[in-house]
Amino acid sequence: MDSRSALKRQAIMDAATKLFLASGYQGTSMDDIAALAGVSKQTVYKNFADKQRLFSDIVLGAAARADDFVRLLPGVLAEARDLEAGLRTLARRYLATVMQPPLLRLRRLVVSEADRFPDLAREYYKLVPEHVMGALAAQFAVLADAGRLRVDDPLLAASHFAFLILGLPLDKAMFLGADHGLTAPELDRLADAAVSVFLAAYGNP
Amino acid sequence: MDSRSALKRQAIMDAATKLFLASGYQGTSMDDIAALAGVSKQTVYKNFADKQRLFSDIVLGAAARADDFVRLLPGVLAEARDLEAGLRTLARRYLATVMQPPLLRLRRLVVSEADRFPDLAREYYKLVPEHVMGALAAQFAVLADAGRLRVDDPLLAASHFAFLILGLPLDKAMFLGADHGLTAPELDRLADAAVSVFLAAYGNP
Repeated sequence: MDSRSALKRQAIMDAATKLFLASGYQGTSMDDIAALAGVSKQTVYKNFADKQRLFSDIVLGAAARADDFVRLLPGVLAEARDLEAGLRTLARRYLATVMQPPLLRLRRLVVSEADRFPDLAREYYKLVPEHVMGALAAQFAVLADAGRLRVDDPLLAASHFAFLILGLPLDKAMFLGADHGLTAPELDRLADAAVSVFLAAYGNP
Repeated sequence: MDSRSALKRQAIMDAATKLFLASGYQGTSMDDIAALAGVSKQTVYKNFADKQRLFSDIVLGAAARADDFVRLLPGVLAEARDLEAGLRTLARRYLATVMQPPLLRLRRLVVSEADRFPDLAREYYKLVPEHVMGALAAQFAVLADAGRLRVDDPLLAASHFAFLILGLPLDKAMFLGADHGLTAPELDRLADAAVSVFLAAYGNP
């Protein structure tokens, strides 16, 4: 694909993302997308077979954010001065990533459309939350082998870690949207408190 | 209200609930509701000023389930043979309540319509999750005063308790719907594991 085509494709993705998030899947037409992207409808269809395909490509783009976080995991834990510091860095980063407004809106959109697109919602679940928890579990298993954590069931421990951190703020954001009212320092405090609970249960004293 | 009117009102609520859950707010008309309830459209409007009012009454009906659970709290803890047993009973009951398919569908519906009805979503959040966490916090404060838990911030402890229990299954159900694949024994096992983590952090040994 030459760079002009790539730019057009990106403009279409950006326009469609904006419209899907603002008006939902049903409320967005390929005409609206073409108009906002400043391209012809023909160009839209040349890049994306149909609206469903375009929607799916956007939603699964969130998987790239999850991948970025997963790639960080081993390094953050290896470089931290101790396990608690490493877990706090991870917890803060995890929460800050998940609470980004565009990712929150995308998450709400996937949940809203899960009845219409069950396969897409399943794919999102697999590539985003499940993928991150699997990567956390792998790290916890390594730490358990090294005697630094006491963990029988790494996946269960990973889900405890994840929801101690994300549970309250994510639930709040699902209902209240951008008005969830949690500031960045409050999110950091929640992340730190989650790590304390996690280490009380899984730490190796 | 005489009992015939009350029955009609209930029939309208039941029909509307079924239709909202199946087709969303936009996809449901007052005509559909009247037809499924077997009453005239005039009767629907005599009971509910408009579709929005009917939707709101249904959504806030979930608050009654939250109230039922909140009323259970002190008794379950008082009657249990020890604190761990009491918390396990609560945790299992909490999770089983939240995972009821109609409540899950309602939750997804409120999240889906939160942009259109922000006040309703805010009210739901206040009357359902926040109300339950507040009641848990009050119990944890009493237990801390009695030296049975070590809790500095009862609301934070309540949110940890809640999301250790609900986090994974609720997230899964938001994306996968009824296909979340968690059986009742698995839910009980998750509830028990959550209590173990909670007590490791907050128990008074």
